[in-house]
Amino acid sequence: MGIRAFAARRARGRLQPFVYTPDRLGPHDVELRISHCGICHSDVHLVDGDWGAFRYPLVPGHEIVGTVAARGARVSLLAKGQRVGVGWQSGACLECDACVRGEENLCANEVATCVGRHGGFAERIRVDARFAFPIPETLASEHAAPLLCGGVTVYAPLRRHARPGMRVGVVGIGGLGHLGLQFARAMGCEVTALSASPDKETEAYGFGAHRFVLTRGAAGLRSAAGRLDFLLSTVFTRPDVSLLLDTLRPNGVLCFVGVPAAPLRLDVGSMLGRQLGIATSAIGGRAAMREMLEFAARHGIVPKVQLRPLAEANAALADVRKGLARYRIVLAT
Amino acid sequence: MGIRAFAARRARGRLQPFVYTPDRLGPHDVELRISHCGICHSDVHLVDGDWGAFRYPLVPGHEIVGTVAARGARVSLLAKGQRVGVGWQSGACLECDACVRGEENLCANEVATCVGRHGGFAERIRVDARFAFPIPETLASEHAAPLLCGGVTVYAPLRRHARPGMRVGVVGIGGLGHLGLQFARAMGCEVTALSASPDKETEAYGFGAHRFVLTRGAAGLRSAAGRLDFLLSTVFTRPDVSLLLDTLRPNGVLCFVGVPAAPLRLDVGSMLGRQLGIATSAIGGRAAMREMLEFAARHGIVPKVQLRPLAEANAALADVRKGLARYRIVLAT
Repeated sequence: MGIRAFAARRARGRLQPFVYTPDRLGPHDVELRISHCGICHSDVHLVDGDWGAFRYPLVPGHEIVGTVAARGARVSLLAKGQRVGVGWQSGACLECDACVRGEENLCANEVATCVGRHGGFAERIRVDARFAFPIPETLASEHAAPLLCGGVTVYAPLRRHARPGMRVGVVGIGGLGHLGLQFARAMGCEVTALSASPDKETEAYGFGAHRFVLTRGAAGLRSAAGRLDFLLSTVFTRPDVSLLLDTLRPNGVLCFVGVPAAPLRLDVGSMLGRQLGIATSAIGGRAAMREMLEFAARHGIVPKVQLRPLAEANAALADVRKGLARYRIVLAT
Repeated sequence: MGIRAFAARRARGRLQPFVYTPDRLGPHDVELRISHCGICHSDVHLVDGDWGAFRYPLVPGHEIVGTVAARGARVSLLAKGQRVGVGWQSGACLECDACVRGEENLCANEVATCVGRHGGFAERIRVDARFAFPIPETLASEHAAPLLCGGVTVYAPLRRHARPGMRVGVVGIGGLGHLGLQFARAMGCEVTALSASPDKETEAYGFGAHRFVLTRGAAGLRSAAGRLDFLLSTVFTRPDVSLLLDTLRPNGVLCFVGVPAAPLRLDVGSMLGRQLGIATSAIGGRAAMREMLEFAARHGIVPKVQLRPLAEANAALADVRKGLARYRIVLAT
């Protein structure tokens, strides 16, 4: 039976109803009945062809929550009817050096949930059960969805780099950033929100920020100079990297989880005197995903979401394009 | 009584005999009778004015070994006649956040041994005793000298980033690099030497390298692609940073201890897919210095040096400028 979905038929195209026949259910696969799917900014990039031309029709969506409707012959860890989540990645070789280290996100043969295959803007999906993660009971499905990509993308680098007592900054208080503030706070850090939107200040404190720095104009960033140990950049615009580095104190690290629009000009000399570093982080592996979901449930970390029906996907995507999501839009099927 | 030294009287000037009256011996100071002083590439930069105009006359030298000839009133840890070493740094506030963490090298008020004060191309020097480090008995003075700047500069970043079993590369097999190979080997790493000089291959194996990669032309670096966990760059020329990053496998870090001549163009997108990082490292604090000297003594790490009399300082500097040192020139007074 075909799967009903919404697909873009060309780059920048409107999403339209689309029915496709799924691949045969493999021995390690599950079919999920989708209840919720978050909208990540990368869905917009995919639909709009910003990252090159992918296979169209393209069904976006990779923050998927659903229940197991069918199981392949070798699926043993998931039960029929169990509630699970799927993020950006839904497959890996499970044999390379990265995979055997528990860093499947760095597998050269990773399968992306909605690149070259159809994603979560749909009633159902078939995926490798080894990348479908049980959702802790206390997490509502609409809150679990944004954790599956946005959440793990900020959790994993904080888990690697941040330590209790550190001064952590988060640049860009959007879908990722508002979760970054909550995770960093729960990790015992001193948390600074850096945003170009003055209207986000009050909510930033609500998400756990101890301090708020307005980045519009250079004066704001300069007011944070020499203060932070770890600065997580979630923004896609090209940053003034020297201003961001200036917010760090000795041994500080600037970490990118979003790719700036253009190459950065990096003055190693100015970094070396304070022994600064630059890190990057790409989603997270299966261990990070499981731990993040537990951590979020334990610490009451809750994305702020706007729930909309899947039928309003085009209007929702338009809002994400315009930066109007506060802070994540989740589609309910 | 004046201190006899060799000084440059202007940028790029020849060193000439020079006598200066030292500052009063402060309560925390010692006066050292210098036996040996290594020549670091940064001495050339200082003499040649490459890093801006410093105070002239300029007495270079910051890899100093000598014996305590006089002690200030509050010096208790060093005895008269004791053999000690002094590196690039000979003072810090000892009160700021960096200092109280044991990272005096990152103190904003660091005192550099031969910047704004007279260094080790001299018969004697007065320095803060808290930055004069006892030399382990089994280290010869001519071997201890290069460890005090070149040694700690490569030891400290390896100590922070490298772990046993990691694949470590060292770019540039010179004064720093030939020590980096030895330290990395003794730390239990798989060690790759990367050099533009084919004639260094045999010696590189002698310093502990398991592999040698000729970097002349792009083909050499490409042969190391995707292999290394940590790459220590000791070179001052502007590197092709994308080729260096390509030698790393997922989660790899490229660390600069020398400042490239020009800013780098950094493509964050290409780093993010493999979760690569860039680090910098600036000499080392007092804890790193003490530990490095012990480590070198325990593991038999020995710089390969060319001993020359202090009176030949100009000829020795000329050899360093031409890249002829194999691998460190040490002046004996």
